[in-house]
Amino acid sequence: MTRFALSPPAGRDEARRVKCSTLGIGLAGLGTVGSGVVLALQRNSDLITDRTGGTVRLKVAKALVRNPAKARAADLPADAITTDWQELVADPAVDIVVELIGGTDTAFDIVAAALKAGKPVVTGNKALLAERGTELFALSKEHDTPIHFEAAVAGGIPIIKTVQESFVGNRILSMTGIINGTSNYILERMANAGLEFSEALKEAQDLGYAEADPALDVNGWDAAHKAILLATLAYGFSIDPTKVYVAGIEQVRPIDIEFATRLGYVVKLLAVVREHDDGSIEVRVQPSFIPKSHILASVHGVFNAVAVHGDAAGESLFYGSGAGQDPTASSAVADLVEAARSLRQPDGHRGFLPYKEAGALVPVEETTTAYYVRFDVTDRPGVVAEIAAKLAAAGIGISGTHSPVNPETPDADFVDMVFQLHSCPFGLLQETLTEIEGLDCVNSSPVVFRIEKL
Amino acid sequence: MTRFALSPPAGRDEARRVKCSTLGIGLAGLGTVGSGVVLALQRNSDLITDRTGGTVRLKVAKALVRNPAKARAADLPADAITTDWQELVADPAVDIVVELIGGTDTAFDIVAAALKAGKPVVTGNKALLAERGTELFALSKEHDTPIHFEAAVAGGIPIIKTVQESFVGNRILSMTGIINGTSNYILERMANAGLEFSEALKEAQDLGYAEADPALDVNGWDAAHKAILLATLAYGFSIDPTKVYVAGIEQVRPIDIEFATRLGYVVKLLAVVREHDDGSIEVRVQPSFIPKSHILASVHGVFNAVAVHGDAAGESLFYGSGAGQDPTASSAVADLVEAARSLRQPDGHRGFLPYKEAGALVPVEETTTAYYVRFDVTDRPGVVAEIAAKLAAAGIGISGTHSPVNPETPDADFVDMVFQLHSCPFGLLQETLTEIEGLDCVNSSPVVFRIEKL
Repeated sequence: MTRFALSPPAGRDEARRVKCSTLGIGLAGLGTVGSGVVLALQRNSDLITDRTGGTVRLKVAKALVRNPAKARAADLPADAITTDWQELVADPAVDIVVELIGGTDTAFDIVAAALKAGKPVVTGNKALLAERGTELFALSKEHDTPIHFEAAVAGGIPIIKTVQESFVGNRILSMTGIINGTSNYILERMANAGLEFSEALKEAQDLGYAEADPALDVNGWDAAHKAILLATLAYGFSIDPTKVYVAGIEQVRPIDIEFATRLGYVVKLLAVVREHDDGSIEVRVQPSFIPKSHILASVHGVFNAVAVHGDAAGESLFYGSGAGQDPTASSAVADLVEAARSLRQPDGHRGFLPYKEAGALVPVEETTTAYYVRFDVTDRPGVVAEIAAKLAAAGIGISGTHSPVNPETPDADFVDMVFQLHSCPFGLLQETLTEIEGLDCVNSSPVVFRIEKL
Repeated sequence: MTRFALSPPAGRDEARRVKCSTLGIGLAGLGTVGSGVVLALQRNSDLITDRTGGTVRLKVAKALVRNPAKARAADLPADAITTDWQELVADPAVDIVVELIGGTDTAFDIVAAALKAGKPVVTGNKALLAERGTELFALSKEHDTPIHFEAAVAGGIPIIKTVQESFVGNRILSMTGIINGTSNYILERMANAGLEFSEALKEAQDLGYAEADPALDVNGWDAAHKAILLATLAYGFSIDPTKVYVAGIEQVRPIDIEFATRLGYVVKLLAVVREHDDGSIEVRVQPSFIPKSHILASVHGVFNAVAVHGDAAGESLFYGSGAGQDPTASSAVADLVEAARSLRQPDGHRGFLPYKEAGALVPVEETTTAYYVRFDVTDRPGVVAEIAAKLAAAGIGISGTHSPVNPETPDADFVDMVFQLHSCPFGLLQETLTEIEGLDCVNSSPVVFRIEKL
């Protein structure tokens, strides 16, 4: 259990402490967030030093870029620029390495090399930690060198420090988050402007919210990577991404949003992390209906929020900018200060380390909520009866059904038929829906939304 | 500027480090929050140790009570109870002192004695720090021993750590908070159930939300103490409470809330802390109209929230339980872990210390918002013209006026007359209102609400 020796090696302390008047940062990546870090440090350097009682002064010693000729928002001297990541990590002027290049290959090599060199790491790379965190946390432990990743989850919202330090005395009962701003923007534009998914996505891309390849945003995996990190943090063990159920927003249609509105819900891409009574952990990402009176329903546009339920703190919510140059840089700078402090402390850093070998995940089949299910059916007498009979046979209750008929074509052959269902295990629902899909009146796979209680 | 020597006294480190396997807590006060701390530590002790990598184990060594015979939620052995605060602080088994007795006299003595003994302090006492923080922070500095006060502001919301650590790289542009749950509950009941102030207050008292003497809740000073601490934290200097403008909710009437609703606002007791361009700081507490679309308007009941605007992080909001046994204990326990860590670190703690000798406060007369003003007038022709003429002479624009007339007594002699006014400095408004009060048609001092832009 103990990860720090009570009596650390003395020589190393001395070596560390001497360097601490000004600490050199090695910045891997000088794109949007990287430039934000440079600018924030230039702007608020004295303030940071004041606030840390004169103990921390930070300076970008070296930056890794792909193309040194490219014009950038952040101004650095030419000799501080390199295209060789090994040079960046090895540079004796670099005390802390900031990884902001993304991806899971070179980024992994950079982080691993920094840890091996005893240089604390700050990263905003959620995919890297969610996919390869087990290896990196092992290196962090082996070399007693921290990884900090506030910038990896929810941009400028300090959710990592909050869960790790402020909730240290709480069992975390649940965390429910809107943690992909692009999806949230798209769903809101569909709701408010009546746009189709593809139109809203195009708009988000034009505004620079979505990536050129928005796959990870809309398929739920960006949110899932963050949820995995939050769960790891709260419960202390690495989560296998292949065990996490993830559904994105590609299948959301205006009709679903209309139906949600009529029932008093809003549609959000929700990441849910929850501890069950037996200690096993539920982690999933799905489009969900949430009550419009809940404070999470007030999270608009590209903002993010995470609701945390602690056994002592009760219901809390942390809200802010989930992405963007300055907010993400704000988190990276806070981590840099943590990293700088760890270099002064012989006896423990605040980088996260798993504290359990493993833990149980709840299979998604056993997770239980109410549901909204949309079927694409051939409209003929008996359709409702046939679907309802299958649900009845499975013991799944129906709260309501509805088919939104276009007044101008009331006898269209193919229609959407919506069922609102009582709570049941997701596995039972899936089996039943597979059976229903076999009915000749059902034309394609049903689309499922969770109705979350919160 | 530097508050910690780069090379700390070595003997002291050793002394500190040796004790750190299990740390003893001296708990001054075993009331609601104190019992919550005991219970949280009993419940989650192993979890805390796991999450700190085996470095922190906490145990209540001694508790100070007034009446040892009284039955309590938290169970402690008889020899761990004392009625003598000096014994508590001096006990060699006590490494950290938690002050939860309230007030500014004995509480001051306890905190001062603990700091002098080199024992870190955790306190939930906002009045103590807001009124006598200057003396205590000086002792903290002199004895290189931290004061932690997460539990003093907004219960379970980790706003102190967030501002101090997560926003370390941000200039704080503003903090806007709903930080008195009792006031918020009362205002909401007035709005939703049409209650008078006194009825809603009675209800809050019956539910145990308000203190038996609810003066500090409803006169704004509980919120003001918290706002003073937030401002001190964000800007690094002690704020003189006598320079802070504070108005409570005693004068709010249902008519004000109705009027706010009609205009698209909700009424909240708002604490505003804001940095002006010249670096001077605005700190004030007042009932305010805020747009009902703003996320702060969704803070219901006894919940608290603080919106923080950082130059890098942008707009953020931190929301949760602002009071109560478990939420406040959650914050105290997080601080205990901080305090425990500081005992292991020879080289710097995270207790807040002012880093500026002084700073400029904006006189409330120079603070500018729009306003809603309610006059108690004798209803006769010419009233509006006379008031409007005074406002015009001062150059204060009028957005609208309204007199809510009871349909059954349309010719009542005394009526409320409401003016919605454009932005102007508060001092100019006050001078003009003093003149208006001199009109023979005006029967008492006008009631002013800020209309906040946010």
